[in-house]
Amino acid sequence: MSLARRGLLVGRFQPFHKGHLHVIQDILARVEEIIVAIGSAQCSHSIDDPFTAGERIEMIRRTLASEQIDASKYLLIPVTDVNDNRLWVSHVVTLIPHFDVVFSNKPLVKILFSEAGHEVQPIRFYHRELYSATDIRQKIIDGVEEWKGLVPKEVAEFIISIKGDERLRAVAATDVVN
Amino acid sequence: MSLARRGLLVGRFQPFHKGHLHVIQDILARVEEIIVAIGSAQCSHSIDDPFTAGERIEMIRRTLASEQIDASKYLLIPVTDVNDNRLWVSHVVTLIPHFDVVFSNKPLVKILFSEAGHEVQPIRFYHRELYSATDIRQKIIDGVEEWKGLVPKEVAEFIISIKGDERLRAVAATDVVN
Amino acid sequence: MSLARRGLLVGRFQPFHKGHLHVIQDILARVEEIIVAIGSAQCSHSIDDPFTAGERIEMIRRTLASEQIDASKYLLIPVTDVNDNRLWVSHVVTLIPHFDVVFSNKPLVKILFSEAGHEVQPIRFYHRELYSATDIRQKIIDGVEEWKGLVPKEVAEFIISIKGDERLRAVAATDVVN
Amino acid sequence: MSLARRGLLVGRFQPFHKGHLHVIQDILARVEEIIVAIGSAQCSHSIDDPFTAGERIEMIRRTLASEQIDASKYLLIPVTDVNDNRLWVSHVVTLIPHFDVVFSNKPLVKILFSEAGHEVQPIRFYHRELYSATDIRQKIIDGVEEWKGLVPKEVAEFIISIKGDERLRAVAATDVVN
Amino acid sequence: MSLARRGLLVGRFQPFHKGHLHVIQDILARVEEIIVAIGSAQCSHSIDDPFTAGERIEMIRRTLASEQIDASKYLLIPVTDVNDNRLWVSHVVTLIPHFDVVFSNKPLVKILFSEAGHEVQPIRFYHRELYSATDIRQKIIDGVEEWKGLVPKEVAEFIISIKGDERLRAVAATDVVN
Amino acid sequence: MSLARRGLLVGRFQPFHKGHLHVIQDILARVEEIIVAIGSAQCSHSIDDPFTAGERIEMIRRTLASEQIDASKYLLIPVTDVNDNRLWVSHVVTLIPHFDVVFSNKPLVKILFSEAGHEVQPIRFYHRELYSATDIRQKIIDGVEEWKGLVPKEVAEFIISIKGDERLRAVAATDVVN
Repeated sequence: MSLARRGLLVGRFQPFHKGHLHVIQDILARVEEIIVAIGSAQCSHSIDDPFTAGERIEMIRRTLASEQIDASKYLLIPVTDVNDNRLWVSHVVTLIPHFDVVFSNKPLVKILFSEAGHEVQPIRFYHRELYSATDIRQKIIDGVEEWKGLVPKEVAEFIISIKGDERLRAVAATDVVN
Repeated sequence: MSLARRGLLVGRFQPFHKGHLHVIQDILARVEEIIVAIGSAQCSHSIDDPFTAGERIEMIRRTLASEQIDASKYLLIPVTDVNDNRLWVSHVVTLIPHFDVVFSNKPLVKILFSEAGHEVQPIRFYHRELYSATDIRQKIIDGVEEWKGLVPKEVAEFIISIKGDERLRAVAATDVVN
Repeated sequence: MSLARRGLLVGRFQPFHKGHLHVIQDILARVEEIIVAIGSAQCSHSIDDPFTAGERIEMIRRTLASEQIDASKYLLIPVTDVNDNRLWVSHVVTLIPHFDVVFSNKPLVKILFSEAGHEVQPIRFYHRELYSATDIRQKIIDGVEEWKGLVPKEVAEFIISIKGDERLRAVAATDVVN
Repeated sequence: MSLARRGLLVGRFQPFHKGHLHVIQDILARVEEIIVAIGSAQCSHSIDDPFTAGERIEMIRRTLASEQIDASKYLLIPVTDVNDNRLWVSHVVTLIPHFDVVFSNKPLVKILFSEAGHEVQPIRFYHRELYSATDIRQKIIDGVEEWKGLVPKEVAEFIISIKGDERLRAVAATDVVN
Repeated sequence: MSLARRGLLVGRFQPFHKGHLHVIQDILARVEEIIVAIGSAQCSHSIDDPFTAGERIEMIRRTLASEQIDASKYLLIPVTDVNDNRLWVSHVVTLIPHFDVVFSNKPLVKILFSEAGHEVQPIRFYHRELYSATDIRQKIIDGVEEWKGLVPKEVAEFIISIKGDERLRAVAATDVVN
Repeated sequence: MSLARRGLLVGRFQPFHKGHLHVIQDILARVEEIIVAIGSAQCSHSIDDPFTAGERIEMIRRTLASEQIDASKYLLIPVTDVNDNRLWVSHVVTLIPHFDVVFSNKPLVKILFSEAGHEVQPIRFYHRELYSATDIRQKIIDGVEEWKGLVPKEVAEFIISIKGDERLRAVAATDVVN
């Protein structure tokens, strides 16, 4: 049985963690190539979206390289938000090369791509109870060192090298101007 | 006494319910024609705004046709949101034909149109305790069949025909990608 | 043989002229209902787009009423421009109710709707050499009274009532601030 | 020791209160000129942002004139929001003249300007526990007259002259259309 | 006879030249205060709009200071473009304090403000044949030194200090990437 | 001597031609990695910008794969336009990973990146008189088969497979609706 040509995975990757890595590896066992769309690409420097699209690309790229995944197997594409949910599928489809199947467990993503006629398959999570970007950001804010073990080593090093942990703590601090 | 020429009613109609229908009927007893501006027209596929502007137009149009309201008496115009509240009146006024009076009980709408020099009259609600779009959406999400009795028959049939109830339940499901 | 349910006609209607009226009449002989999308709805007060969407709706509505075309047969929907051509089809489809066939001779409109899987049929023009919105705007600018014969009587009267001819001449005047 | 040429203060000033006035006076003791950037300039007529940028400029201008601060010492510039935090610094820098130092206690503002290479100095607040725009807005909504003592006399008079207190109470009223 | 309180002048000031200065001086003889709205504020680094809004503010401010015009007599406000001409008046009015009369010879500006109910008065130009921003930009591009005599001394010095003449020549160079 | 880590090349690639390929190869001889930013990413289906960002990524990716350039050496990132030239650099920098040098001969790109403090180096073109995207688009429109020799074989095949040549001819056809 031959693999479908290309799969699409959409995520925010704030930050890219070990669960995300397992999802990509799992998808690459099911399709020949994966397009990783980095959503909310225009967002950065906020509690929910601390890292720029470029920084998230760097995280993923370094990790996949370290995992010795062939760079010809994946494409990393930043995708900004649009106002209208139904425009969003066209927006994504415009920005990225042709794909054959969308991988998502997110109900909105599933319904939007389904209504637009795309095949959607579920993501098989690896230890979901363990890997959560929200929890990781909270641990960074709280100064709980354990966050470094929840992301690939390259991601932890990169975040520290750009002082991303300090940035996140700064934007999480209570706003004092009024 | 002659009627004012045209009234304007602004709403989101997510979905169009029996209370809305009574409001339109009541306004049509007070003015010759009504412009129904379908607000937040760019929104869809969310818990608060599940239906597209086109779908909401369809709901209203089918209902008013079934009620045998002369189609020359009303205009259904989608109006997207704008960022600035004070631009909003100009935006609405640009998109729709001339009107003589705005019908609204919404404080923001009232103050914005009043500050721009428009006459604003209150809406006379019919059984407000009964008809609430928020409640209807919640009933759809919860699978409480009673919602079908709160909207005109044409609306219930239309929502089911486009699987709008399934869509709303889907977007209401907890987001599981992180 | 039954008619297709709904046709879509997209135009700017700057202004609505007799050729446009014939196109609508012709389409209404081929489909049950027509959605007239008034494009570039955000544009007004320029040489190419002198009239607001609301004013264009008024022109069309008065003309079709005068022609005794049943108001339940048509929908007039303003559609603003979007930046990306490929998003445009989704944008239009979001704003208007379901339609079965697009009527257009405009190559870009034809290819965009075709690529998105919609049926496109050609418009049968009536005296195209005679009716051109560009020519009509030029005649208004030049003060050539003949323009009034090229648009429906209701349109000529409406344009004059809102001083639309003066507006067009004003915006066409050479800009003298630098 | 000569003063730095220009300082930048960014705030929303909803409304401009006595604490803001002290901050400006304090900064003017440290730099030759101050640029006051009026943020979220596109916002108005909401609970958090009741006043337009123009109204906020008027408040500040009248107060500083009354305080006999030389008008050549300050510039009042409205700055609209942008979607991307990192674009925001470029956006501000594009709209205003050159400045040498940013005054802010707001963590996001501090980190964004710092990452872009600007010097940031803290604001020395005057009776912060007393002067809070959020509290003042709440007092206006609740009809607690004491708010007038928390803003400069010129601001209180101006707000009342434009019926800004009524506007704020109106937009704070529960939305009754659904 | 007392002067009207505030006049509004809208221009792009690319760059601010001696003709503009005379216009401001002339308006200040007719009203107590002038709001100078710096239009197309988001534009810069192009042949028609080489300077940022901030740079244009600097030009005007330095010139008016040098002319010993009291800084309390004028306000310099950057105003970005909006897509819709009819929204533009609301956009301007939102960003700036109240004004009583608009000064303009530009037909579009005149008709937009007039339609919105504002008083518009003509600008009395001083040697229009001499002072043209378009000509000045062309002279800068062509390296014709005479441009320095057409703008106030402070403007010439400022442009040179920011290498604005080099920038304009650079953006005017034929684009060689394809 | 070690190579700079990453170079940035910005282009529209409408379509990607042999000259572009040589530029990339030349840059890869000077830096370790290249980020190819695909500009005007939101544009498609027009005479100047016939192909979507996704299609352009596909063209480049297939060509570089065929040329056996290691996929770990390049990143292909779509970049949409922004309104303000000076925001544009921040916008690009936000969307892509860190880079050390920009390669460009385009005066605007050079001055914008230079003013923002980036190193800019010239592109060494290969047979510029031969390879021009504008000429290639014109040849496609005119049905001159020679265009296929000016682009890499993979690009010619891809364009034909998506009927891109037909699309370009269609959008180039005179617009007949008015």
